[in-house]
Amino acid sequence: MFKVFICGGSGYTGSELLRILALHDEIEITGVTSEKSAGMAVNELFPAFFIYSHLKFENLDIDKIKKKADIYFLALPHGKSQKIAASLLEAGKKVIDLSADFRIKDASCYEKWYKTPHLFPSLLNDAVYGLPEIYREKIKNASLIANPGCYPTSVILPLYPFIKKRIIEIDSIVVDSKSGTSGAGRKAEVTLNYCEVNEDFRAYNVAKHRHTPEIEQELSFAFGGFITIDFTTHLLPVNRGILSTIYAKLKKKISTKEALEILKETYENEPFVKVMDEGQVPSLKYVKGTNYCYIGAVVNERTDRLILISTIDNLVKGASGQAIQNMNIICGIEETKALKSLALTP
Amino acid sequence: MFKVFICGGSGYTGSELLRILALHDEIEITGVTSEKSAGMAVNELFPAFFIYSHLKFENLDIDKIKKKADIYFLALPHGKSQKIAASLLEAGKKVIDLSADFRIKDASCYEKWYKTPHLFPSLLNDAVYGLPEIYREKIKNASLIANPGCYPTSVILPLYPFIKKRIIEIDSIVVDSKSGTSGAGRKAEVTLNYCEVNEDFRAYNVAKHRHTPEIEQELSFAFGGFITIDFTTHLLPVNRGILSTIYAKLKKKISTKEALEILKETYENEPFVKVMDEGQVPSLKYVKGTNYCYIGAVVNERTDRLILISTIDNLVKGASGQAIQNMNIICGIEETKALKSLALTP
Amino acid sequence: MFKVFICGGSGYTGSELLRILALHDEIEITGVTSEKSAGMAVNELFPAFFIYSHLKFENLDIDKIKKKADIYFLALPHGKSQKIAASLLEAGKKVIDLSADFRIKDASCYEKWYKTPHLFPSLLNDAVYGLPEIYREKIKNASLIANPGCYPTSVILPLYPFIKKRIIEIDSIVVDSKSGTSGAGRKAEVTLNYCEVNEDFRAYNVAKHRHTPEIEQELSFAFGGFITIDFTTHLLPVNRGILSTIYAKLKKKISTKEALEILKETYENEPFVKVMDEGQVPSLKYVKGTNYCYIGAVVNERTDRLILISTIDNLVKGASGQAIQNMNIICGIEETKALKSLALTP
Amino acid sequence: MFKVFICGGSGYTGSELLRILALHDEIEITGVTSEKSAGMAVNELFPAFFIYSHLKFENLDIDKIKKKADIYFLALPHGKSQKIAASLLEAGKKVIDLSADFRIKDASCYEKWYKTPHLFPSLLNDAVYGLPEIYREKIKNASLIANPGCYPTSVILPLYPFIKKRIIEIDSIVVDSKSGTSGAGRKAEVTLNYCEVNEDFRAYNVAKHRHTPEIEQELSFAFGGFITIDFTTHLLPVNRGILSTIYAKLKKKISTKEALEILKETYENEPFVKVMDEGQVPSLKYVKGTNYCYIGAVVNERTDRLILISTIDNLVKGASGQAIQNMNIICGIEETKALKSLALTP
Repeated sequence: MFKVFICGGSGYTGSELLRILALHDEIEITGVTSEKSAGMAVNELFPAFFIYSHLKFENLDIDKIKKKADIYFLALPHGKSQKIAASLLEAGKKVIDLSADFRIKDASCYEKWYKTPHLFPSLLNDAVYGLPEIYREKIKNASLIANPGCYPTSVILPLYPFIKKRIIEIDSIVVDSKSGTSGAGRKAEVTLNYCEVNEDFRAYNVAKHRHTPEIEQELSFAFGGFITIDFTTHLLPVNRGILSTIYAKLKKKISTKEALEILKETYENEPFVKVMDEGQVPSLKYVKGTNYCYIGAVVNERTDRLILISTIDNLVKGASGQAIQNMNIICGIEETKALKSLALTP
Repeated sequence: MFKVFICGGSGYTGSELLRILALHDEIEITGVTSEKSAGMAVNELFPAFFIYSHLKFENLDIDKIKKKADIYFLALPHGKSQKIAASLLEAGKKVIDLSADFRIKDASCYEKWYKTPHLFPSLLNDAVYGLPEIYREKIKNASLIANPGCYPTSVILPLYPFIKKRIIEIDSIVVDSKSGTSGAGRKAEVTLNYCEVNEDFRAYNVAKHRHTPEIEQELSFAFGGFITIDFTTHLLPVNRGILSTIYAKLKKKISTKEALEILKETYENEPFVKVMDEGQVPSLKYVKGTNYCYIGAVVNERTDRLILISTIDNLVKGASGQAIQNMNIICGIEETKALKSLALTP
Repeated sequence: MFKVFICGGSGYTGSELLRILALHDEIEITGVTSEKSAGMAVNELFPAFFIYSHLKFENLDIDKIKKKADIYFLALPHGKSQKIAASLLEAGKKVIDLSADFRIKDASCYEKWYKTPHLFPSLLNDAVYGLPEIYREKIKNASLIANPGCYPTSVILPLYPFIKKRIIEIDSIVVDSKSGTSGAGRKAEVTLNYCEVNEDFRAYNVAKHRHTPEIEQELSFAFGGFITIDFTTHLLPVNRGILSTIYAKLKKKISTKEALEILKETYENEPFVKVMDEGQVPSLKYVKGTNYCYIGAVVNERTDRLILISTIDNLVKGASGQAIQNMNIICGIEETKALKSLALTP
Repeated sequence: MFKVFICGGSGYTGSELLRILALHDEIEITGVTSEKSAGMAVNELFPAFFIYSHLKFENLDIDKIKKKADIYFLALPHGKSQKIAASLLEAGKKVIDLSADFRIKDASCYEKWYKTPHLFPSLLNDAVYGLPEIYREKIKNASLIANPGCYPTSVILPLYPFIKKRIIEIDSIVVDSKSGTSGAGRKAEVTLNYCEVNEDFRAYNVAKHRHTPEIEQELSFAFGGFITIDFTTHLLPVNRGILSTIYAKLKKKISTKEALEILKETYENEPFVKVMDEGQVPSLKYVKGTNYCYIGAVVNERTDRLILISTIDNLVKGASGQAIQNMNIICGIEETKALKSLALTP
């Protein structure tokens, strides 16, 4: 039994860790923190999680918590993970950080987009970007995992093989992403109220979303040269799920079938990536509550553009599920442990 | 490994059996039928259920299917289960019927409310009403389970102890239930279209819903005398879940605390019934995707009425989850096997 | 042209006044206040209301505003209207108060349920309860209108004739109401977030909702004696609309048809009350965005209970539409002016 | 008073004509047809439309109906309008066709995309594309209006000035559109069921949506040369509204401010086009139930792409509202008559 600790358990990614880990029989949760709910039992805040009646939210006191576990999930706001991670690493612990703090290798790029200084740039090189489909071998021995952002997971997986194989024009990439509202976090804001989001749909942070440099970094690594993309995010009136529609000009003509074969070949051994057959594209509901990423492709022969459509659950493969997948890899546990649920349908 | 067969796999209760059983490691699904989708692989109709790519929907040919398994789930429309159940029982099989066909002990009452003759009234006595919280011992040895209706499960569980203990006036019971739209089944009907249900809310089958006699039967058994109730159903713009608000005049004054203690005592050993603490009432989302029933109670001292509020997922504890709970009991498998998922939150 | 002023224009009832009055050609809006948005143009806060680009939210400075108009709508939180109303009345103005401050004739009852002292109990007698279907004649000459609550409007209209005619047992009334989320107001609260309300349904303030004494007062006036009811409110995952399901034991047997005739007779000349035909019950969507109240009735002959189902838009007939209806009556304008829109369907 | 007749009144565009025309005081509706609901009163099918209790759906008998009115709205399925329009035109009537039958000037292009022969290609030249912002002068004297498609309206309006002024690379246009479910029509189909659409989001008809040639035709006319675009449509879980996100490479650098000025200049006298200020982009809810089109623009300086975001209500400016705007123009009625409602907020 591995001992697991969650820093930040009252937000949506924290509570999702609690939900998924309830089905995991090789770990034990030894503690969970929450600034606002410290002192409250987990099942008081989340009555649906009655099995955690013995677990109380505690304050994030680094000296206390660093003795409690082997592996630490940090489900904290951006900027708050850096110090905690550094202390835990120093204490010899494994850290899986769900924030953006260790995803961007270039500290100045991080500082530009997140508008906050990076206090531990030296850790950026040790951090492994926790996308198992690309970095599985490095993850196995990592001490610090930078768990990928939700949008980047949905964008990098479909684009990766086409960039790697130089099939698309790299200055032609347009990514139009749509996310469920849980992506905005569990916070009190009028613009996130039910009546404001329901029956509405809107774009936000147009041409300046913080996930842009993260996507560009990983695509650039795959390409071996710098890639800039257009990336627009929209708020969907659903609780969970991201669907990304991705457009790129083909450098050479390929058919829809060939595009799908490239995806299938790339991901044939991946337990969590599902490539659609020709004529089908994925639907958000295929992944609700699951760790899967479904990908479809269509070549528009009228315009010579490749259209990729991918979908994930932003809280699972886009956050907490992927974090647990990383934990399983690090611990040598079966990679799909606790992650086999099928989508809640309907 | 028990061999399990599903008759009717393309509706919402059938697909829910497939979803839940995917996590069950002591059974094997040996076949699934569907009139409309015969010949199609399960994952073609439900791409989210990719693990069933090997399983094709087949026609319901009783001679063929009766050799295929030990336990049969019938997720068929009302009226269609009777013959199939009779044939399977004759072949020595165990049958769990999710329709209403064997729930009403009085065949004439069934015929009056369902407006169709009952062809096998002799089986009605053998059938065990599959509510484990009341009939667990009988279920263990039953060959034919009449799996309870969704609304009745949500109404009987909270009312049962108060009727048994004769705490409420039995002619004062008013049940106001609200159900998610999956309760209407997976069928093409303009009134079930997204645009018709979304942003709407309506009562239906007022004073004539077919679940009325089922609820009245079980309450009457508990009371030892005939009980008539007012039962009104409403269509909620959500996919899943039933919340029932139940009103009854108290025969003698009890406090909210005492009411909750009666519930807690009754269900303290039940794995799937959760009684709220004073001051809290259950919310639909506590049970989404789960087999739990949450119950809350408030005594209105101004009117001497007991108000009970219960919630279940209509497709899980209200149908397929409870059916699997019954299967586990019959097979001597751990009762909660495959049914431990916590609610998808949010 | 009547000059109209709105105190509190940034909440949902305030913005609804702005929306509806945009179609009113006999009034001019001379000002609107908002504490939080003072200085901002109305169309900055509500880009959908582009026609109000000339109108800036201002602070509620009573000395300034009392010169600006003839009629004042107070769309302020409960407890905040009392002083403002008193000052405006003293200045000879007409006041339509959308809060609860002047609805309860008994100041001690108000203080008990609203947990705040009433500073101007002497005004309670002057205030006219603004339900035109009952008090139209008094409204014509009123200076202070206590605009009814949303739930009370939906409950009083259907029950009124049956209580007046003493057809139902007055101690048997159970009201189960369900409201869209705009009823909770436009405020930042995690429990009102999209992800918390969507796909959920819950009861709230069970046995202690503040609209209880308001309903009981009006039913008691109609009956000529004190009536106590059970009143339970629920939060619906829709933006707008209330549907109330009301149960009462019949004192003497009447048929569904007779019940409907009583309603039709009572409301035959009312422009905003629509009584359904036998076999039909109203649906929330019939009234979305409109000032109508639809009412249906069913007599359950098995239990001798009358079941009434009513629906209104909580922001229109339940608040701002009714307020404008009252204004039209006071000003001698055609009562339906600006209130003739049909429901947005779908 | 103009006499108006509606062919096809039981679908969503037909019922929307009925809803909007209820506020129009210079026309009289003299009849409405429906194949499925012939003989039924309008308010039986749509209880919300109680004012039409005198109006019965009738069969579409061309000889009968052609005597009944001056102006005919055809809200019929694609392919069904051609003959009806031809007969009505022959009888000297004015026809506003909401289908696609007369939108594509090139009959062979129509036949290729709609997979049905065009029976009256000679009428294609007489037909005026009913987008008043571009063709107002022609509309005034037209006998046959080809009312624009919903998606095309949302795409042509924002792109038009940039193409006309040759500011963007014409082979770089990517249009990512999202539509509410009413766009799919009022029909019985499992895939349109509430439970299938709610909490889901999906792309459909990828690279082959029928509105593609209509958009390309109008953009090509504006450009004076053939334009091909990528156009992807998605199904939003909302009742109404389209939001289109449009990407194009700039031929020469312009700022966001300059892009917005181009839009403002183009549409400054248009009553139904609203251009956002810098830093704001439109939200679906700004237009719910209204005839407005809101447009925002952002120049991404990192990629030299112009991003345009537009939103309309698919049933109003995208169909019935625009049809009534066209009728007002043809009849010499104030163009905004019956179309001044502000968006239902929230």
